[in-house]
Amino acid sequence: MRPSGRATDELRQITLTRKFTKHAAGSVLIAMGDTKVLCTASIDNRTPPWLKGTGSGWVTAEYGMLPGATHSRAKRESAIGKQSGRTQEIQRLIGRSLRAAIDLDALGERTITVDCDVLQADGGTRTAAITGAYVALVDAMQVLQKQRKIKRNPIHGQVAAISVGIVAGQSVLDLDYAEDSSAETDMNVVMNEAGGFIEIQGTAEGHAFRDNELQEMLALARHGISQLVEAQNACLQD
Amino acid sequence: MRPSGRATDELRQITLTRKFTKHAAGSVLIAMGDTKVLCTASIDNRTPPWLKGTGSGWVTAEYGMLPGATHSRAKRESAIGKQSGRTQEIQRLIGRSLRAAIDLDALGERTITVDCDVLQADGGTRTAAITGAYVALVDAMQVLQKQRKIKRNPIHGQVAAISVGIVAGQSVLDLDYAEDSSAETDMNVVMNEAGGFIEIQGTAEGHAFRDNELQEMLALARHGISQLVEAQNACLQD
Amino acid sequence: MRPSGRATDELRQITLTRKFTKHAAGSVLIAMGDTKVLCTASIDNRTPPWLKGTGSGWVTAEYGMLPGATHSRAKRESAIGKQSGRTQEIQRLIGRSLRAAIDLDALGERTITVDCDVLQADGGTRTAAITGAYVALVDAMQVLQKQRKIKRNPIHGQVAAISVGIVAGQSVLDLDYAEDSSAETDMNVVMNEAGGFIEIQGTAEGHAFRDNELQEMLALARHGISQLVEAQNACLQD
Amino acid sequence: MRPSGRATDELRQITLTRKFTKHAAGSVLIAMGDTKVLCTASIDNRTPPWLKGTGSGWVTAEYGMLPGATHSRAKRESAIGKQSGRTQEIQRLIGRSLRAAIDLDALGERTITVDCDVLQADGGTRTAAITGAYVALVDAMQVLQKQRKIKRNPIHGQVAAISVGIVAGQSVLDLDYAEDSSAETDMNVVMNEAGGFIEIQGTAEGHAFRDNELQEMLALARHGISQLVEAQNACLQD
Amino acid sequence: MRPSGRATDELRQITLTRKFTKHAAGSVLIAMGDTKVLCTASIDNRTPPWLKGTGSGWVTAEYGMLPGATHSRAKRESAIGKQSGRTQEIQRLIGRSLRAAIDLDALGERTITVDCDVLQADGGTRTAAITGAYVALVDAMQVLQKQRKIKRNPIHGQVAAISVGIVAGQSVLDLDYAEDSSAETDMNVVMNEAGGFIEIQGTAEGHAFRDNELQEMLALARHGISQLVEAQNACLQD
Amino acid sequence: MRPSGRATDELRQITLTRKFTKHAAGSVLIAMGDTKVLCTASIDNRTPPWLKGTGSGWVTAEYGMLPGATHSRAKRESAIGKQSGRTQEIQRLIGRSLRAAIDLDALGERTITVDCDVLQADGGTRTAAITGAYVALVDAMQVLQKQRKIKRNPIHGQVAAISVGIVAGQSVLDLDYAEDSSAETDMNVVMNEAGGFIEIQGTAEGHAFRDNELQEMLALARHGISQLVEAQNACLQD
Repeated sequence: MRPSGRATDELRQITLTRKFTKHAAGSVLIAMGDTKVLCTASIDNRTPPWLKGTGSGWVTAEYGMLPGATHSRAKRESAIGKQSGRTQEIQRLIGRSLRAAIDLDALGERTITVDCDVLQADGGTRTAAITGAYVALVDAMQVLQKQRKIKRNPIHGQVAAISVGIVAGQSVLDLDYAEDSSAETDMNVVMNEAGGFIEIQGTAEGHAFRDNELQEMLALARHGISQLVEAQNACLQD
Repeated sequence: MRPSGRATDELRQITLTRKFTKHAAGSVLIAMGDTKVLCTASIDNRTPPWLKGTGSGWVTAEYGMLPGATHSRAKRESAIGKQSGRTQEIQRLIGRSLRAAIDLDALGERTITVDCDVLQADGGTRTAAITGAYVALVDAMQVLQKQRKIKRNPIHGQVAAISVGIVAGQSVLDLDYAEDSSAETDMNVVMNEAGGFIEIQGTAEGHAFRDNELQEMLALARHGISQLVEAQNACLQD
Repeated sequence: MRPSGRATDELRQITLTRKFTKHAAGSVLIAMGDTKVLCTASIDNRTPPWLKGTGSGWVTAEYGMLPGATHSRAKRESAIGKQSGRTQEIQRLIGRSLRAAIDLDALGERTITVDCDVLQADGGTRTAAITGAYVALVDAMQVLQKQRKIKRNPIHGQVAAISVGIVAGQSVLDLDYAEDSSAETDMNVVMNEAGGFIEIQGTAEGHAFRDNELQEMLALARHGISQLVEAQNACLQD
Repeated sequence: MRPSGRATDELRQITLTRKFTKHAAGSVLIAMGDTKVLCTASIDNRTPPWLKGTGSGWVTAEYGMLPGATHSRAKRESAIGKQSGRTQEIQRLIGRSLRAAIDLDALGERTITVDCDVLQADGGTRTAAITGAYVALVDAMQVLQKQRKIKRNPIHGQVAAISVGIVAGQSVLDLDYAEDSSAETDMNVVMNEAGGFIEIQGTAEGHAFRDNELQEMLALARHGISQLVEAQNACLQD
Repeated sequence: MRPSGRATDELRQITLTRKFTKHAAGSVLIAMGDTKVLCTASIDNRTPPWLKGTGSGWVTAEYGMLPGATHSRAKRESAIGKQSGRTQEIQRLIGRSLRAAIDLDALGERTITVDCDVLQADGGTRTAAITGAYVALVDAMQVLQKQRKIKRNPIHGQVAAISVGIVAGQSVLDLDYAEDSSAETDMNVVMNEAGGFIEIQGTAEGHAFRDNELQEMLALARHGISQLVEAQNACLQD
Repeated sequence: MRPSGRATDELRQITLTRKFTKHAAGSVLIAMGDTKVLCTASIDNRTPPWLKGTGSGWVTAEYGMLPGATHSRAKRESAIGKQSGRTQEIQRLIGRSLRAAIDLDALGERTITVDCDVLQADGGTRTAAITGAYVALVDAMQVLQKQRKIKRNPIHGQVAAISVGIVAGQSVLDLDYAEDSSAETDMNVVMNEAGGFIEIQGTAEGHAFRDNELQEMLALARHGISQLVEAQNACLQD
């Protein structure tokens, strides 16, 4: 029995709120249960130096956690003066995942920065961030198309992500904080809409996990991501 | 005529949403028109080093702006590696203002950190932060009282803040971004519920302002703050 | 009775020593009693990036305190690796005040940096810095005129600053350190030669201050600044 | 055909040189072909603050790349003033992997830091680091046992790591730099001596990878790691 | 002929002004011609961590250059966020030199920090700093003795320093900026009152210098330092 | 009797291994007894900004110490976030020494960075670094000549360095760590092949050293460096 009473293959309630704020080209609040992440996609008409003159653009992500988002207040990284290894690892993951969904040549020489800021944390913030960031990215592309700055939509795939893990000996989908902090294995899976893998990151927290456990977790992830892909599509068709 | 169509002495629509997030002891989303600031008050059972053994506590504030909160994306301060002078100036102002409302001896040896994070900016973020932070601070004190960690409420005053300024030769209340960016004088006023001054910060952006203009602006501020004090009280009585 | 024996509306002895050092275009040592600040104005024939090609120049200020300038040694900010919030707040204030006195278009595409370094501190360092920095800025403009790099003097106003406050229930002018550290209200006022306000920053350290106290303090400030303006003029006519 | 002429399931030449330097408790130079990493394990008789008084110890890793180790010189991170996201990601991975092999309670209140410094890079530095670091860690434990500071060997497992990937449409084992820079998928696998997974990190660089490709890569990794485990054992029995 | 018209073995005019500022225990303004350095010695009743409980104290130095002190304005190190290699090298040299003059056991568990801040630079700032810092250190010891915190004067030697060099093929004493910037060899010599060497740092800027040139420079340094030692004594006897 | 049993004028065993790593243009492992430093010289086809357009190039050095290289592990400077004063002092010394051996005009507009990383430390790392770096620099020049990027070899001198000191009252050559940590005087000497001085840095650690001690140490240094010059030449002729 999971702490939340969910079945092992059951996602938390997912809500995607578009246009949550008004200035950024894309702005999506994603809630996966009590995990709430604000994803804003901003357009900058410049590329990073290494792409200048190539005709190609760039998509990058930044991740942050509001100090009050967690059970006990986390120190503000701008006050500490640097981003933690965890923060950097997460934002690199989000950026790679989004770039798997977009044709950077078709984007043209501009940079899309997707900021993923956690307003409230209850486990799975990085995977929620990826799922929400995709929608914000799509919205930003529609802005560029409406402004006739790009001819065709550079989005060529869809990405969504979920966490899976082994808790109390059982493979489960979409761990909340209570599960995450006692998990024996924690795995984040990023997939496209066709079930292809964009990224797998699995870590044994306690004992090493066996091949059959890996396969179980991957099946759960596939199941969960197919629902997230639907939720993204439903939201984008509104 | 103001860009928003408001009268010169008219506040924007104010909304205070308590318990906007669930982990922090106090959590208030304040909206002043399109300016939206999330204020969370967290309790730490330690004091800064210089207060150890004094029996006295501390209230401090931190301020941040989500990168996507502004018209054009602002760089993330944790990525830059330091907080700007503006950020530090604002968070020092918020902290001083809150400390004017609380008896630090009655608080006891603990630290309350009020984080004010701007989700959407449209002028007046620092004054909105003060007005919202006061409510979050009151909520955090109620948590301490419910936990029987303090015997009496250390709050001994009420603080609220508003901006006033001179725009197109006219004194106006509660400037939005459009007014703020063209203001000849910009002034932030923090007052208590009795109309006493906690802080005045006025800056001539263009020509120097005269004494009669100062008096006009102070009258507008007094008028606005009395309404903010009422809004805080109404919200806290829910 | 004030600790120094001064009347409530009495300034400390003011001395302005021009050409205190020889390399900078303007170099003024200002002493307000035991507070001594060295203000040097340096000319750089480049503008900040955002002004390139506009024909306009920039005036900025930096503020520092020698470690041995205070009662107990202060840590060196270069060794800490960053400027404190207080330092940044002060140098932003000095810069804004000086820019109120100069026509940046007439300055042309160059940057004047006025460094205000406190050799000895006894309260009121930021206001002394502004008063001294104005004289150093004027001297730097004369250098540019002598070098025929500018056609007319871009200085179009005069700025001076003083602190006022409420100490032991009484409004007083030009607080020294002993008064400053026990003040109930501390206010810094920057004015031009015509008595117009450039900046007002007032903070209640203890109880909130009332409107009549504000008016008293402003009158004292006006009285003090008129003498500082005269002292600046006398010094510049030497 | 691979650039190196190796079969798809063929490791590069592996050499493990113990006692490569003399000061650290464990010091191993691992060469995987042209990739050369110096792994030194140092003992500190203190724990991190959060373990004080728990009786438990800690194992952590740091990773660095000599500036001259790569094809074109990389900037020195100490000169830049911070470790890159990549460096932090790698050293977190090495640390987690080593902690999977050791009983931290049996280690007692001390910290083992394993420094992995790349002298020469030709792909697969992070996995080589893990494989070499394990041997250095074992040597450090033997020092502690010889000094009778610990009663029993806290090592309870064995870890080794290898990269696998898809290059030119084919799954291959142990990518060198030429392959790594053109890989469509890059995956790092950390396993214990029983073939259990400690960590999987797979990234699609080009198109998403399918489940059958994942299974192929995992089989290659398992094959390679079994040989690395043997090499570690052979070296430790010398 | 030297630019200043001085003989090759002629020092610039030296002035030592004690009690230049009033807060620090020792405060000396040293002028060597146009080079002016303010040296303040501050007493802290704590030692660095590594000396706690040893009964021994510490003397350290910090060095800074006011931005306006040089021909063209130097960037403020606190704004840059770190001290340059040059600054650190100089302050390490000053600290070592002063520690050669004092019995740290007799000082007891306290730290003396001597801040050497260059108000105006014209070559030889580091050697002037050492010569002035010695006097400030002596004054600080007298304060400790007057406060009966130490029984005997811990100063057991006297240190002074001078630069020598080869300019236009000729060995010269006490280089000013014009000479320093064209010197073929630049050497700083720190000696005690008996002519023993505390530190020698010689650098060939152009061609390597020969042994006879070295001997010539050392003789000049010895000649100059004997005069500086006299100047220190004369000043301390006032 | 020295701890190592060496005569007072006896160098440790010196080994110079060229092409120790394969990517950098020059790569030399120098061992002076147990002190081992890897020196790699990398070519960058850009100059520092201040040399752009001058036709002249630059040679600079960076110095690092692997954390496990010393008796007790040293903290990693990239993790601390800055290079120590000692590190900066050493790399400035190495850079100056190398520039004394090369005609920067003949090098042309490119930068050679020589990285000196200490793999194992046993005293004299900075002087070993200089001696090894010279060989790496020569190798890099040969690469440029083979690539026909420069017409003639810009190396116009040869540099080598050694430490001398006074240990237990006796002048000795090439101090190891045991001697270095108890030395009364420590001196580093950099010379060219003709016995001219490039740099002298001597520090009295205990009592001041006398002129005759200085002369003894310089004679030892000259004796040692002549052997190092031969070792460099022998190695380069292989």
